[in-house]
Amino acid sequence: MNITLKQAQAIIEKAMAKAKEINTKMNISVVDAGANQVAFVRMDGAWLGSADIALKKAKTARFFDMPTGEIGKISQPGESLFGIEHSNGGLISFPGGLPVINKDGDIIGAIGVSGSTVENDHEVAAAGAAAI
Amino acid sequence: MNITLKQAQAIIEKAMAKAKEINTKMNISVVDAGANQVAFVRMDGAWLGSADIALKKAKTARFFDMPTGEIGKISQPGESLFGIEHSNGGLISFPGGLPVINKDGDIIGAIGVSGSTVENDHEVAAAGAAAI
Amino acid sequence: MNITLKQAQAIIEKAMAKAKEINTKMNISVVDAGANQVAFVRMDGAWLGSADIALKKAKTARFFDMPTGEIGKISQPGESLFGIEHSNGGLISFPGGLPVINKDGDIIGAIGVSGSTVENDHEVAAAGAAAI
Amino acid sequence: MNITLKQAQAIIEKAMAKAKEINTKMNISVVDAGANQVAFVRMDGAWLGSADIALKKAKTARFFDMPTGEIGKISQPGESLFGIEHSNGGLISFPGGLPVINKDGDIIGAIGVSGSTVENDHEVAAAGAAAI
Repeated sequence: MNITLKQAQAIIEKAMAKAKEINTKMNISVVDAGANQVAFVRMDGAWLGSADIALKKAKTARFFDMPTGEIGKISQPGESLFGIEHSNGGLISFPGGLPVINKDGDIIGAIGVSGSTVENDHEVAAAGAAAI
Repeated sequence: MNITLKQAQAIIEKAMAKAKEINTKMNISVVDAGANQVAFVRMDGAWLGSADIALKKAKTARFFDMPTGEIGKISQPGESLFGIEHSNGGLISFPGGLPVINKDGDIIGAIGVSGSTVENDHEVAAAGAAAI
Repeated sequence: MNITLKQAQAIIEKAMAKAKEINTKMNISVVDAGANQVAFVRMDGAWLGSADIALKKAKTARFFDMPTGEIGKISQPGESLFGIEHSNGGLISFPGGLPVINKDGDIIGAIGVSGSTVENDHEVAAAGAAAI
Repeated sequence: MNITLKQAQAIIEKAMAKAKEINTKMNISVVDAGANQVAFVRMDGAWLGSADIALKKAKTARFFDMPTGEIGKISQPGESLFGIEHSNGGLISFPGGLPVINKDGDIIGAIGVSGSTVENDHEVAAAGAAAI
């Protein structure tokens, strides 16, 4: 099972609606089951540097099939995955990336959001992922 | 003058309509005046490897403010710009990338399309750019 | 609104004057609103390795529209943006990068300075940014 | 012997004067004897993609102590250095890069110019190099 463009666009639409609701400007990326980008938007005035972070969050969430923030907990100094961010051309291990799971429980892709606090990024990502 | 997300999405919508009309599956990227990506879509079943090509075509068109195919004419062996593709982290110099110009004649961004023959890629890019 | 070369050169001149005043040798980079480099100088005897740092500081300041040192405060181990430096081909998150803001409050670019202590780097960047 | 910032700025000033005289908009980079960038300017409206090309031309000219166009003659298909552009993170082997030589015949750095035809790029680079 793999995400369709129509699903990716629905995810982005829901994520953008949430971003506007909480008065933020986000970069939003959706990748498929193969961790390849399907759709991306940068909202007007959103940080330029968050485009790459949004994509890396989406990829990271699909690379390991978990929320990016979970990886960050165990990539701190002294923890078991310290330095994992050096792999795969650069990971992002703070919140804002989530797997996208369909009604049957299959992971069909992932969403990455960047442009505000990590709490806001996560909230917008969760709103997007809930579109499926 | 810089492109807005609304304009970028209108460009992508027109480009996708043309892609469907000529029965192709495309990757479509839109960058702003600073050559930073604003929006991207990969149509279902489109080549995975064309995502990076679409982005590089859009960047190349804005980097030099001309259709990508024009650069390719003079980057052939023996021509004046042979090897220019080695710059800027990789250029794409065959057709499918076009500057996006507003009604006042300002270059506000660029579109890059990849997924079929270069003739089709160019046709879809032109349909997208004409949305502005 | 985008920075002009004349403005970038005025920024560099002021920054160099401050660097000499406090007896330091700096690398100074100015980027535009699209985070693309407009002007750069390396003062005689300045560290070679600081050229890339100056550019990355300028880019980082524009990527997130804030002083680079602000990012560093929240990219420490255990903080919310730990590991953000892995994005965008490498960020620099210690002081010395500042947005350049015009009289109307528009961010028209950024300056990055490297070559001494981060306090000195920041002081020289601030002197440069104040030229606008 | 190594180029000073004062010399690099004199080179850039002369190159910019020539660029304006022939009605072009250039990116101009000067590197030192160690092939490290000393100074750079992008003239207003010059191609964004030419910044990297200007730097790579300057580096290429110093890497091999000859005009970049000379390398291009022997990097064509079937010639002895075919593919040399893949080295050193990317070379540019068409005209516009020249060694900078002082009155004693020492190579103290190099200049790279990009933004117009290769003939114009070369002419502007030569005007700059002649400042020493």
